[in-house]
Amino acid sequence: MDYQHLLADRSEQMKANAIREILKVVGQPGMISLAGGIPSPESFPMQIFSRITQQVLDTYASSALQYDLTEGFLPLREQVSTLLGSRGITASADAVHICSGSQGVLDGIAKLLISKGDKIALEAPTYLGAISAFNPYEPEYIPMDMDDQGLIPDALELTLKTHSVKFIYLVPTFQNPTGISLSLERRRQIARLIQKYNVLLVEDDPYSALRYRGEDLPAIKTMAPDHVVYISTLSKVFAPGLRIGFYAAPRFIREWLVLVKQGVDLHTSTFNQAMAAEYLRGGFLDDHLPRIIRLYRPRQAAMRNALDTCLPSEFRTAPSDGGMFLWVTGPKGFDMMALYRKAVKNNVAFVPGHFFFTRETEGVETMRLNYTMADEPTIETAVKKLAATIEQM
Amino acid sequence: MDYQHLLADRSEQMKANAIREILKVVGQPGMISLAGGIPSPESFPMQIFSRITQQVLDTYASSALQYDLTEGFLPLREQVSTLLGSRGITASADAVHICSGSQGVLDGIAKLLISKGDKIALEAPTYLGAISAFNPYEPEYIPMDMDDQGLIPDALELTLKTHSVKFIYLVPTFQNPTGISLSLERRRQIARLIQKYNVLLVEDDPYSALRYRGEDLPAIKTMAPDHVVYISTLSKVFAPGLRIGFYAAPRFIREWLVLVKQGVDLHTSTFNQAMAAEYLRGGFLDDHLPRIIRLYRPRQAAMRNALDTCLPSEFRTAPSDGGMFLWVTGPKGFDMMALYRKAVKNNVAFVPGHFFFTRETEGVETMRLNYTMADEPTIETAVKKLAATIEQM
Repeated sequence: MDYQHLLADRSEQMKANAIREILKVVGQPGMISLAGGIPSPESFPMQIFSRITQQVLDTYASSALQYDLTEGFLPLREQVSTLLGSRGITASADAVHICSGSQGVLDGIAKLLISKGDKIALEAPTYLGAISAFNPYEPEYIPMDMDDQGLIPDALELTLKTHSVKFIYLVPTFQNPTGISLSLERRRQIARLIQKYNVLLVEDDPYSALRYRGEDLPAIKTMAPDHVVYISTLSKVFAPGLRIGFYAAPRFIREWLVLVKQGVDLHTSTFNQAMAAEYLRGGFLDDHLPRIIRLYRPRQAAMRNALDTCLPSEFRTAPSDGGMFLWVTGPKGFDMMALYRKAVKNNVAFVPGHFFFTRETEGVETMRLNYTMADEPTIETAVKKLAATIEQM
Repeated sequence: MDYQHLLADRSEQMKANAIREILKVVGQPGMISLAGGIPSPESFPMQIFSRITQQVLDTYASSALQYDLTEGFLPLREQVSTLLGSRGITASADAVHICSGSQGVLDGIAKLLISKGDKIALEAPTYLGAISAFNPYEPEYIPMDMDDQGLIPDALELTLKTHSVKFIYLVPTFQNPTGISLSLERRRQIARLIQKYNVLLVEDDPYSALRYRGEDLPAIKTMAPDHVVYISTLSKVFAPGLRIGFYAAPRFIREWLVLVKQGVDLHTSTFNQAMAAEYLRGGFLDDHLPRIIRLYRPRQAAMRNALDTCLPSEFRTAPSDGGMFLWVTGPKGFDMMALYRKAVKNNVAFVPGHFFFTRETEGVETMRLNYTMADEPTIETAVKKLAATIEQM
């Protein structure tokens, strides 16, 4: 039987991303991978997991295993409401919804809001998972320039003046792929702009808890609550395999997103939501987060130090106070894809930066380096190998 | 801020289904609900859960908590491959994919295959969850007639002759809402038809393990493997709150569905997949399934008996050898919605059958009754109350 003719028109937009091919080399024996974007298994609170699962069974019994509300498991929503409060975001348990990882609500928002050809404004570069959530709904992208302080507000204003956008998508803190954070002053400017132009912002915040230095920055959601869908996750501070994300959104959007989610997965795993509820309720996050930071902070420092020391002076690393990535820009026109091919032969993998741009010609001289999955000596070895490979070119 | 104008065109198709309003009354104090469609918590293998969670942590350690393949957790796919083998379906572990409940792949198939206006042929009545998965992609439905032996093959052939359909969607065994099963002879006829007309069948099989009498019927997938996406779930035989479904599909479809799922939730909870793997690997399903059947079989019998005894002779209950529902058809033109309104006042809830039809005027004299959530005396009381209410009308 031939199946090709059965595909919906939108499948054109869902083709396999070349980055998957990049990530495949990661598993080759001997490879040092700075390519992935996943937390270290050392960051998982293994020692308390069995206690938490037992607590879930004792506390919630069969209701942890039953179908539950599409909105989310109420004990978890209560905990997340408190967590959001600590980030300055006011959202009652009713106003907090749970999703199957952040990815779940990125798909939900796209499904709810994007008609074919609608315009989405986003940072260039941006998070690939969002692109893979949005693409099937056939939007057009309006990429906006960033610098070391994040999205440039003038670029946003120009976009809002010239285009009618369905929503803006930003990762303001420790962005994937760049590790860059939007400065406080710019957050305020952007909050004013979305209010002035009355446009919706999707603020994706998976990394802000992973801060290795400096002061916390408030979410834009705190500055323009009616104009922002704020999304976050427990994937980086508990366990990504549980697929627990959450969001706070204006009521109208929130209620529609429930209808959307009903058609997609009915609800997120009750058992995993109950585990997350116990993790937060028992104070385990407060206890465990400093350990994660103690694990990653020296890895980031080791990587930055090695990059500064070993790479030629025309290679520049963007400033970053947290998260999981550093972003390196080579001299104008430097072919990072060529470096990638040589580096892989030398057993070091990374992601060439052009994959993170929606415009094809951008970012050829950039790369994303992950530092959560390797220890300091390994990171140093890898960066030295990269430097040697650059030297050969 | 006004949000209405932000909605995508497809949101027209996602409006709240009136059945949600029906299900809301279920929780009212004193209400006997035959309206829901969920397994009894008594059917969950509570006594082995804590053993299974411990086994997962011991066996898989941090890999049970880490991001995993979109295709599914390999140890579970190996177990499901064996389970499918016991149903006569040949699928290697590679060829089995895991989804976030059956709902997950219903959404995936719709997203992958349905362009606006594409035609989907389905049983009338049909499963509402499938409709809520398909609707956002704006298909047209071609409902096909059923009788006590399930879908009428001539109705299918007429449909395939007259329409170009994207796919056929069927629940051949213990269908939701009717509890009816497609006879063996008809399965063979339908397998021949989909091969003759070269059309794809989505065969949804959540209930076949819940058989209370009679011989197992082979899935249509066993008769026309290249033409069928076979979907099943552990929700009815393990725990629905874990959201673990699975499917076997032709390679082309399967590989595309991985791309689709990447954008929707990356993957299904690794931890829950590991629990499901241990449940199957440890032989717990084989041990536990007979208990579930021993719980539900007398409930079904009690309901059927009460319906036969108490309801006026013009009310007919469809034959059913398993699953979770019985389907009652009143005399032509009987207003089941009016009965519903009166019955709720009398503290009995059910779902009027017209909700399960895609054509608005159909099924006004039908109703779906669930028997998994109430014990036998409660079921008898409820049916007697229904009979008394009918009497008053």
